[in-house]
Amino acid sequence: MTRSELVNQIVEKKSFLCVGLDPDLSKIPPHLLDTEDPIFEFNKAIIDATKDYTVAYKPNTAFYECHGSKGWESLAKTIAYIPSNCFVIADAKRGDIGNTSSYYAKTFFETLNCDAITVAPYMGEDSVSPFLAYENKWVVLLALTSNKGALDFQMIEDNTGAKLYERVIQASLTWGNPENLMFVVGATRAEEIEHLRGLAPESFFLVPGVGAQGGSLEEVAKYGWGKDCALLVNSSRGIIYASKDLDFSEKAELEALKLQEEMASILAAKGMI
Amino acid sequence: MTRSELVNQIVEKKSFLCVGLDPDLSKIPPHLLDTEDPIFEFNKAIIDATKDYTVAYKPNTAFYECHGSKGWESLAKTIAYIPSNCFVIADAKRGDIGNTSSYYAKTFFETLNCDAITVAPYMGEDSVSPFLAYENKWVVLLALTSNKGALDFQMIEDNTGAKLYERVIQASLTWGNPENLMFVVGATRAEEIEHLRGLAPESFFLVPGVGAQGGSLEEVAKYGWGKDCALLVNSSRGIIYASKDLDFSEKAELEALKLQEEMASILAAKGMI
Repeated sequence: MTRSELVNQIVEKKSFLCVGLDPDLSKIPPHLLDTEDPIFEFNKAIIDATKDYTVAYKPNTAFYECHGSKGWESLAKTIAYIPSNCFVIADAKRGDIGNTSSYYAKTFFETLNCDAITVAPYMGEDSVSPFLAYENKWVVLLALTSNKGALDFQMIEDNTGAKLYERVIQASLTWGNPENLMFVVGATRAEEIEHLRGLAPESFFLVPGVGAQGGSLEEVAKYGWGKDCALLVNSSRGIIYASKDLDFSEKAELEALKLQEEMASILAAKGMI
Repeated sequence: MTRSELVNQIVEKKSFLCVGLDPDLSKIPPHLLDTEDPIFEFNKAIIDATKDYTVAYKPNTAFYECHGSKGWESLAKTIAYIPSNCFVIADAKRGDIGNTSSYYAKTFFETLNCDAITVAPYMGEDSVSPFLAYENKWVVLLALTSNKGALDFQMIEDNTGAKLYERVIQASLTWGNPENLMFVVGATRAEEIEHLRGLAPESFFLVPGVGAQGGSLEEVAKYGWGKDCALLVNSSRGIIYASKDLDFSEKAELEALKLQEEMASILAAKGMI
């Protein structure tokens, strides 16, 4: 999906919501456990319930890989089931030496046909560029993550005072551009989001951490707004585990709708719709 | 596998060789392509040919994932086939927020029963510690990698002059210890290996980049030697692609033997055997 197609979806659906598909057998409704592929059945119901309110889905590979090849099959089926007008981000956090990253790019962009993959920046340019070589596909590079451990290395300042996550953004914008490169920017640090937006005014930010992890959508939009919105705000647990009962998909729909309505107000206030 | 069991294997086999199992359908002998599972058949032959000369195997997940669930099946079969006296490192370079990293740990330590997994440090402590929670299992943390992109971020100096890869080693040694934590240290920078050894005198270093990537085994041993050897030197292409013909496994055996003999001399000179 191209950037303009993604922006069109945001306008059309009045939403910049991304739903994280992180199926955990201990958390999904028990009545699904008797089906042949509980993970796919769960995802299918969540996708059906939320697809009108979300522009992107983000399956995290950890929740599929732990079931071996069967889990990988559930992942492939889930991605194939996502409507083609939704942007699909494989939250895989891959990254390896150049030749090997090419195989990851093949996996996620060809075998699974995702639109984007999250990539860890530690190994530098040749670990990222094989993903950028694909037309109309995207890298979502980890910049400032929403977890506690983000403080361990991402905030290290170099001798000019620049933090590691700033260096990551500045360097990677010479490898890619706002048409094929986004950044993960945790919602738990509003003051940092504003600063990052200054460094990358046009780049999409994928913002996890709204809801369960404590970030506020209003603050993210206030400090993180970029050219043509340039925000995808992710919610996983708050939507997919809104209920563990027979009504789980209705409850998921309500939670997605609630966020979409809040996003519609923001988009209207910003003059996007 | 515990540290003392690994050291015993090094002494017994007179080797600190790790063979990288990176099967690429465009590089494996064409006569294998007609078999039901060419990747497994190739790995099986390589393992049979090299198992007396190597203490560890390191399948890189990228080469399996690109074939979808079938590739994941080949990976599981390969790992199950590796003799139990060999140390198995999943070269997966995973890392995510704590809860999610737990699922990766489950995947590689329970579902696949590997001894170790390579982990990217960018997301900090909570992304690494779920792997360290497993008894007799190991994290192999990326410190200084052997690729060109290693220069982009790993060498960034903080305001005290400490480089990022040094900070990674120092911080992570407060999360784990030489019994459950190793480091990836690229062989292409001998002067850096010596420096790193000073920072982590007891920790095992997994050293890629000997052979095809240009590093020298003699230099690695000279500068990288630690307590009880504490080195695993990886070779992938130089062994597994020594020939593309019917004799590929014999040629792989010869290459592994050549490295094992060089390692035996080093171990003898160091008084380990």
